[in-house]
Amino acid sequence: HINSPRLWDSLMEMAKIGPGVRGGNNRQTLTDEDAEGRHLFRRWCEEAGMTVGIDSMGNMFARHEGTDPSLLPVMVGSHLDTQPTGGKYDGVLGVLAGLEIVRTLNDMGIKTKRAIEVVNWTNEEGTRFAPAMLASGVFAGVHTQDWAYDREDAEGLKFGDELKRIGFVGDEPVGQRKLHAMFELHIEQGPILEDENVDIGVVTHGQGLNWLQVTLTGKESHTGSTPMPKRVNAGLGAARITELVNDIALRYAPHAVGAVGHMDIYPNSRNIIPGKAVFTIDFRHPNKDVITAMEQALRFEGREIVEEIGLTMEIEQAGAFDPVTFDEGCVSAVRNAAVRLGYSHRDIVSGAGHDACWINRVAPTAMVMCPCVDGLSHNEDEEISPEWAGAGADVLFHAVVETAEI
Amino acid sequence: HINSPRLWDSLMEMAKIGPGVRGGNNRQTLTDEDAEGRHLFRRWCEEAGMTVGIDSMGNMFARHEGTDPSLLPVMVGSHLDTQPTGGKYDGVLGVLAGLEIVRTLNDMGIKTKRAIEVVNWTNEEGTRFAPAMLASGVFAGVHTQDWAYDREDAEGLKFGDELKRIGFVGDEPVGQRKLHAMFELHIEQGPILEDENVDIGVVTHGQGLNWLQVTLTGKESHTGSTPMPKRVNAGLGAARITELVNDIALRYAPHAVGAVGHMDIYPNSRNIIPGKAVFTIDFRHPNKDVITAMEQALRFEGREIVEEIGLTMEIEQAGAFDPVTFDEGCVSAVRNAAVRLGYSHRDIVSGAGHDACWINRVAPTAMVMCPCVDGLSHNEDEEISPEWAGAGADVLFHAVVETAEI
Ligand SMILES: NC(=O)NCCC(=O)O
Ligand SMILES: NC(=O)NCCC(=O)O
Repeated sequence: HINSPRLWDSLMEMAKIGPGVRGGNNRQTLTDEDAEGRHLFRRWCEEAGMTVGIDSMGNMFARHEGTDPSLLPVMVGSHLDTQPTGGKYDGVLGVLAGLEIVRTLNDMGIKTKRAIEVVNWTNEEGTRFAPAMLASGVFAGVHTQDWAYDREDAEGLKFGDELKRIGFVGDEPVGQRKLHAMFELHIEQGPILEDENVDIGVVTHGQGLNWLQVTLTGKESHTGSTPMPKRVNAGLGAARITELVNDIALRYAPHAVGAVGHMDIYPNSRNIIPGKAVFTIDFRHPNKDVITAMEQALRFEGREIVEEIGLTMEIEQAGAFDPVTFDEGCVSAVRNAAVRLGYSHRDIVSGAGHDACWINRVAPTAMVMCPCVDGLSHNEDEEISPEWAGAGADVLFHAVVETAEI
Repeated sequence: HINSPRLWDSLMEMAKIGPGVRGGNNRQTLTDEDAEGRHLFRRWCEEAGMTVGIDSMGNMFARHEGTDPSLLPVMVGSHLDTQPTGGKYDGVLGVLAGLEIVRTLNDMGIKTKRAIEVVNWTNEEGTRFAPAMLASGVFAGVHTQDWAYDREDAEGLKFGDELKRIGFVGDEPVGQRKLHAMFELHIEQGPILEDENVDIGVVTHGQGLNWLQVTLTGKESHTGSTPMPKRVNAGLGAARITELVNDIALRYAPHAVGAVGHMDIYPNSRNIIPGKAVFTIDFRHPNKDVITAMEQALRFEGREIVEEIGLTMEIEQAGAFDPVTFDEGCVSAVRNAAVRLGYSHRDIVSGAGHDACWINRVAPTAMVMCPCVDGLSHNEDEEISPEWAGAGADVLFHAVVETAEI
C-alpha cells in the first residue's frame, strides 16, 4: 500500500497554489500559479531522489532509476494545470499519486528493473489555450510544436511566449523520450462509480470529442428603434444553436453529450442588437460515426437557423480526438491490481479526454479511475475522499510496479 | 439657414476623437476620449463667445446670453458619448447643431431675448454605466446623484470616481439651472423617414423602456463526463430566455421590440457546463401597459424554463422609462419650423430613449429627427447625409430662435 495520508497532504499542499474563490483552484496553464506548482513538484521529485527533465513543450519528467538501464521506463502521471474554476484533484491526483509511488518504493527500499518516470503534461485542460491535452498531443505526434506554440489565449498571448515567460521551455526535444508503457490515475468526473459504490474504474475506452468554434455574423443595430423584421440578431442565432446542440445530443441518448461552454457576444452592449457571436460547441460520443453524424446535423440544421435570421456562419474545429481503446495488457494490469488488492471495480469508458488518450498512440497505456462526489468536476466543489484517492493510488502502484518489474 | 458645411466639418472633427475600428466611434462616457471630446466642445463654445458651466454630474452648459436677463434660457443639445461600436452622429449631431445655432446667430449679429444654452448631457448611452440617460435623469430628479455616482462599469469602476478622474465634476449643483424649454435634434436610428423619403421627423412621443438584468444560476460541471440528465446548464437557460424575449416581442407586433444585447456566461470555458449566466433584456413599447405585460410574460414563462432545467433566476431592473408625450407648444414650434422652411415632415414616435425624455418632466421639451441610412444606428456604419443634417439643424434653429424670441 502507498502512504495514503502523505498523498493527501501533498494534494492539500499543492491546492494552496492558485486558490479559487470557493475552495477549488484556478491554476491555469502557463500562469504564474502554474509555474509555482511546477516548482513545488520539481522540489518534491528531487527530494525523492529523482532527476527532472523538461522538454520543449514544458512537459516535466521526473525519473526514478531502475536496476536495468537497457529497459525503457514506465511513465505515470497526469497534469497539474486546472480549469479557471477547477477542483483540487482533476489531474493533480494522477501526478502526485505517481510521486507517491516513488516515495513508497523509497520507503520500502524496493527497486524496479525499469525506471519509473513521473510526468506532468502541459496544458491538459485546454481552457486558456485550445485544444485540450495540447502538449501530450505534441509528444505523441498529433500536433506539431510550431502549431502548438502559435495557439492564442483570449488576450491574444501565444502559448510559446507564455511557456518561455514562466521559464519552462526545456532543452529536451518533445517526443524524444521513449517509454515502455504509461499509466494515468484520474478522478472519474462522472457519477457512475459513486452511484454503484465501486472503488475502482478500469478504463477500457475513452470517448471521442469534437470542438467546433462557431462565428455568427449579423448586423449591430439599435435595440429600441430597429423594427423586429429588420434585425439580424447574432445573439438570437447563438441561442438557437445552443438549443440545437442540446437537442442533437439528446437524439443520440444515452451516450451522446453536447453543450456550449464558451460564448462571447459582440459588442455586448445592452442597447445593441448583437452583430457577432463566437462560441464553442463540445460534442462527445464513444463512437466516432455518431460524432460525425452530430456534426453533420449541426451544420445542416444550423444553416437553416442562420439563414432564417439572415446571419452568416463560419465553423472551425477547435479541437478533436477519436474514441480510444486502451492497451489490453495495461488494462489487465490495472484490473489484476484491483482484484489482488480486493477493491471493488468495474470496466468504464472515460467521458473526458486525458493525456493517456494521446500517449496510447505511441506506447501501451491504461487508466485507473476513482469516484468523485456527485460526479462533479470542472467545479470548485469537486470532492473525493482520502480513501478513494488511496485506493486509486494503490491500484496504480501495483499496476506500475508490476509493469516495471521487480 | 445655418451654415451646413461648418456643421459637417465640426462633426468630422469631433469624430476624430475616439475613432472606432470601422469608421465609427468608441468614445464611451467618462473615458479619456470622452474627456478629449468635452475639451474640444468647450473650446469651440468659448470661441463662439459662450460661457461654459459644468454641474456635479458633468453635464456641460454653454450659455449664449440673451437681451433680457430676466427670462429663462432655451436649452438645446444632446450627448457626446457614444456606444463602444457607435456612429459619428448619435448624440453628437444634436450637440453640435446647438453650437451651430449660436455660431449662425453670431454671424447674423442677431440676439434673442432669452439666452440659449447648448448642453452636453453625461452618459446618455448607458453601455458603460447603466441606465441610459443617467445624468439628464439626475438633472430631472428621476435619480439621486448618490445613486448615480455608485453605478459600476464591467470592471467595477464607479461613475463618481471616473467623473472625478476625467476632471468633470463641476461646481454647479445638478438640476439647479432653470430653463424655459429644451429642444433636441437626433438622428432617427430607425428606417421610417428614409423609407418614406421625409426630411424631418416631428417627434410627438417616445416609447417606454424596461431593462431587466437576469442572473441564472446552475451548476458548473464537465461537458464530457456529466450525463445529460445531470446537467444544470445556465447557458441553455439563457438561450431559451433569449428566444422567449424575441417571442414575447413578436406577440405584441408591430410596435413592441425585445432583445438581449448583453450576455456573459461563467466561467466561459469550452469544457465546463455554464454554472451562471448574466444578461440584460431590453423591452420597449409606446404603451406602458404593454411593457408591463411583456415583463409579466417574461417572469411567468421564464420561471417555467428555469424550473425545467433546475436553475434559479434573479431579475433586477437595470433601467426603465415610461412612454413620453412631448410638449404641445414645443412640438408645434418644430412642426411650424419645418413648414416654414419647406421641408417634408411627419409626426414620429422615438424608438430610442433620449435626454429630452427626462427633461420633458421639468420643462416643455420637443425633438427634431432627421433620417439615417437604412435606419442603422448603434453601429459604426451609421451614416447620414450633410443635407439631412443641415435640414434637421435648420428646423432646430428656427424652433429654438422662435422660442427664445427675437
Ligand atoms: N479530464 C479533463 O477534464 N480533461 C480536459 C479535457 C476534456 O474536456 O475532456
Ligand atoms: N438614442 C439612444 O441611442 N439612446 C440610448 C438609450 C437607448 O437605448 O434608447
